[in-house]
Amino acid sequence: MTDERLLATARGDEPADLVLTGGRVVNVLTAEIDEVDVALSGGRIAGLGRYDGREVIDLEGAFLAPGLIDAHVHVESSMVTPSQYARAVVPRGTTTVIADPHEIANVLGLSGIQLMLDDSADLPLSVFFMAPSCVPATRLETSGAELSAKDLLRLRANPRVIGLAEVMNFPAVAHGDPEVLEKIDAFSDLVVDGHAPLLSGPDLQAYVAAGITSDHECTSADEAREKLQLGMTVFLREGTAAKNLVDLLEVVTEATRDRVCMCTDDRHAAELLDEGHIDHLLRLAIGRGLDPLTALRAATWNPARHFRLWDRGAIVPGLRGDIMAFDDLEAPRPHMVLSNGVVSARNGEMLTADAPRDIPSGDSVHIDWARVNLRVGAQGSRLRVIGLVPDQILTVELVLEARIEHGAAVADTERDILKMAVVERHGRSGNVGLGFVKGIGMRRGAMATSVAHDHHNLVLIGVDDESMLSAGRQISRMGGGMAVSVGEHVLAAVPLPIAGLMSDASLVDVRRQIEAAAAAARDLGCSLKDPFMTMSFLSLEVIPSLKLTDRGLVDVERLELVDLWSD
Amino acid sequence: MTDERLLATARGDEPADLVLTGGRVVNVLTAEIDEVDVALSGGRIAGLGRYDGREVIDLEGAFLAPGLIDAHVHVESSMVTPSQYARAVVPRGTTTVIADPHEIANVLGLSGIQLMLDDSADLPLSVFFMAPSCVPATRLETSGAELSAKDLLRLRANPRVIGLAEVMNFPAVAHGDPEVLEKIDAFSDLVVDGHAPLLSGPDLQAYVAAGITSDHECTSADEAREKLQLGMTVFLREGTAAKNLVDLLEVVTEATRDRVCMCTDDRHAAELLDEGHIDHLLRLAIGRGLDPLTALRAATWNPARHFRLWDRGAIVPGLRGDIMAFDDLEAPRPHMVLSNGVVSARNGEMLTADAPRDIPSGDSVHIDWARVNLRVGAQGSRLRVIGLVPDQILTVELVLEARIEHGAAVADTERDILKMAVVERHGRSGNVGLGFVKGIGMRRGAMATSVAHDHHNLVLIGVDDESMLSAGRQISRMGGGMAVSVGEHVLAAVPLPIAGLMSDASLVDVRRQIEAAAAAARDLGCSLKDPFMTMSFLSLEVIPSLKLTDRGLVDVERLELVDLWSD
Repeated sequence: MTDERLLATARGDEPADLVLTGGRVVNVLTAEIDEVDVALSGGRIAGLGRYDGREVIDLEGAFLAPGLIDAHVHVESSMVTPSQYARAVVPRGTTTVIADPHEIANVLGLSGIQLMLDDSADLPLSVFFMAPSCVPATRLETSGAELSAKDLLRLRANPRVIGLAEVMNFPAVAHGDPEVLEKIDAFSDLVVDGHAPLLSGPDLQAYVAAGITSDHECTSADEAREKLQLGMTVFLREGTAAKNLVDLLEVVTEATRDRVCMCTDDRHAAELLDEGHIDHLLRLAIGRGLDPLTALRAATWNPARHFRLWDRGAIVPGLRGDIMAFDDLEAPRPHMVLSNGVVSARNGEMLTADAPRDIPSGDSVHIDWARVNLRVGAQGSRLRVIGLVPDQILTVELVLEARIEHGAAVADTERDILKMAVVERHGRSGNVGLGFVKGIGMRRGAMATSVAHDHHNLVLIGVDDESMLSAGRQISRMGGGMAVSVGEHVLAAVPLPIAGLMSDASLVDVRRQIEAAAAAARDLGCSLKDPFMTMSFLSLEVIPSLKLTDRGLVDVERLELVDLWSD
Repeated sequence: MTDERLLATARGDEPADLVLTGGRVVNVLTAEIDEVDVALSGGRIAGLGRYDGREVIDLEGAFLAPGLIDAHVHVESSMVTPSQYARAVVPRGTTTVIADPHEIANVLGLSGIQLMLDDSADLPLSVFFMAPSCVPATRLETSGAELSAKDLLRLRANPRVIGLAEVMNFPAVAHGDPEVLEKIDAFSDLVVDGHAPLLSGPDLQAYVAAGITSDHECTSADEAREKLQLGMTVFLREGTAAKNLVDLLEVVTEATRDRVCMCTDDRHAAELLDEGHIDHLLRLAIGRGLDPLTALRAATWNPARHFRLWDRGAIVPGLRGDIMAFDDLEAPRPHMVLSNGVVSARNGEMLTADAPRDIPSGDSVHIDWARVNLRVGAQGSRLRVIGLVPDQILTVELVLEARIEHGAAVADTERDILKMAVVERHGRSGNVGLGFVKGIGMRRGAMATSVAHDHHNLVLIGVDDESMLSAGRQISRMGGGMAVSVGEHVLAAVPLPIAGLMSDASLVDVRRQIEAAAAAARDLGCSLKDPFMTMSFLSLEVIPSLKLTDRGLVDVERLELVDLWSD
């Protein structure tokens, strides 16, 4: 309902709830900066000009810009709940995120998405959701759930579900696969986001013709340019694993500046805390020469329009009072944030002291350890081994001589070959996929995690079976998480009891736990910068070249299972 | 449903229905021009590149741009039906119009809007409608219908009703009038268009805060700039009565180029035929220095976005095959037009030869002439007289000595004072408003019209009562229209039997009839360039200063009835 008090405030007939005075207001629509008061009433912006208010905050020359919008994020990748995530990002100026809950959907299906909806209701952060389009990623894994078009349609009843999330199976779209087209059709009146790395030419034309209107996977300016030419909105991504923003800045021109957004996709705790959220992307882009007002627009008005969130994205009358204040236009660092007209954060701290929310864990780790056997019986002499590529999430296929002991292939720390297992944890197949991986560096013990894209089965990597089983059992006891063991002794553990993906602790606490676990792994010889992130991609069978799922080794190029033994 | 054949065509696996080759394709999104084929399949654009098709049209270097969109038009003002209107504008490159049927709504209410919806279905012109927000304009007239918020809500069932039309009663909005806010609320999830001439400052802030997102009434660059700053989309209007485009061009900057559209509002037959429709606005804007690609964007992509018509506005895969071809980028004159993938016009002629549609007239002229008495009994010596202002739709209030004959005030051709009557024609009140007007020039006879904004009662102006009644009776016989009489003799007549507003003849025929009637009026001494257009505004009590409705003389500034006699 139109708020008559809002109009009275706008006219100047009634005092505003709050007036922000003394600020320099960034108009992302006209690329102007105006020294005017901002009057707020009932959570909304009533007017710009000279206003009286029941409360007045003097900005002392600070800039005011609309609250920031993350156009595409998997909140689960922060390993905290949406409500904890809000506490970390709202002080950074973020007031809206468009979340794709596809991690939890792969574990818990619709009930997992409902859990995210429930936990994110009525926060100082508006959390909108896109319905996950690709659960599971492929048939070569056992996920915890499968979401059909019919399932996804049920999500539409919630007004915070505003579209279909990244349609990752781009070959299926381009080739008219009925199942994926059915999902697109189910959301064709809303926004359908894309995910089409390196897709180009006629196949890209088909992908766009299907009604997919964005892409966040561009890694080069040429790729982004082609997608912009075809009408797509391009999201400049700067996550933890994938950092593309700087490489794409040259495509932001006067002609395209209305169709670029900013997003983080996957951004982990340490970077969120040390560098920031979308505010970091702003500083990075501006630092590399992007005009600050263009950068701000890409993080506010543009995503609001793309996602048809008509009530936000600029500081103009009638829109939500989502506003951030900062001092340096060349390097915005918000020191005050308003969410829905109320000051929600100051100087990096959230002000609204909600009680911690009570979140059902989802009870998602279902493994009968008595039946898990990690022995790899010798069936030849040469093994297909997953070869890590430093700082990449892709792998190479190696063929190496097996080390055989007592009729079984075992780890060989001399050659840095460790055993890897993927244990199905959804209580569906009971599968255990077994293989070997080179490049981890551990000399003893094992590490394990229940965060493994996209199925999130348990991944174990270690020198000996006892350590691997010990780490795995620790995760079962915690209901999900990460662990490092030597023999029966658990050296470090990170509980992620919510779907085995998220903690209900704060981002600061989770970060500390993860770093302690990573340090424990490094103490055992692990040479990886971020051992658990690396592990989380070793089972993702849509990224080349050789991966291991609960069903076994996957040759990604051919998208089929291959034998562990090459001879 | 996603068309699998469209995707196959995009991929190049199936031949297109039609390929446009040899053209220079204007990309209104990136402001680039590309020499690529455009492949069409099932009415949509499948792909851009090199394509084979069952049919191929060689453009021989012509430019291709998206079909044009008129962001705000009262089709009734052309005095032809939507289907006839389409025959006139589609060859001009227009493939979509956003119509506000508020003229017919004032006469016939919802059934009039339904008539427009029916007549405009399945044309090569997409006709979308905004629900008329201000029927009637004020309480100082008798209209044929009143539309409440509840009535308007019923229109939403039709997918071609896409928002709320120009909210003209801007003082009511700014001051929170519950009735008008109820209408806005009824459409708050769709587009709510504005109409706020000269509104500025706090009242404009309130108007915008109410959720109104556009304005087409700007007459100066400063006015447009303020509205753009507040987030509104500004429509550059170039109609018959109001021509504002050139004055507003300077506000179209790199920062605002995504929030300007083009519209005609009211554009009459002669100008549509002689100058053109939106194509004329393009040439005018480009001729005055606007970059052609920016101009084209304002007439295609921008209105498509404003009105949330996600399926059109650019030549990119997946969108409708609404395309025009023209040779000169500096002065686009479409020589071929495609509507929904099919060639609909060539060289100024519509190709699809639909049978004339059978339209119910609406039977809208209900006057009992036996009861109509035009005598103005003398009640004083000085009269309030409506004073015309040349080439303006506003008037001034004059106070002049009455010419009294046989106890009644009569016309005085020596001083160019004619009698004017407004006869209620909806069969509701039977009112006859009487007054005098100076500046028409007629020396004998009378003229009459059933087109009179916004109530469309019968307006009669003449030297003697007999001529006035004769012209009025002729209109009754025709079921609406225009007439010129001397005594009992009807010199010229334009039948507008559909709601007394529209003919079912072609625009060419209607134009000829109107010009014949205007010539007949001029033969009687009328000095007006466009006598019937001038008459149509003399009864519009929301344009200053003195107007006559069926209820009597209206002082527009005070918005109240005033006495004909000033002493």
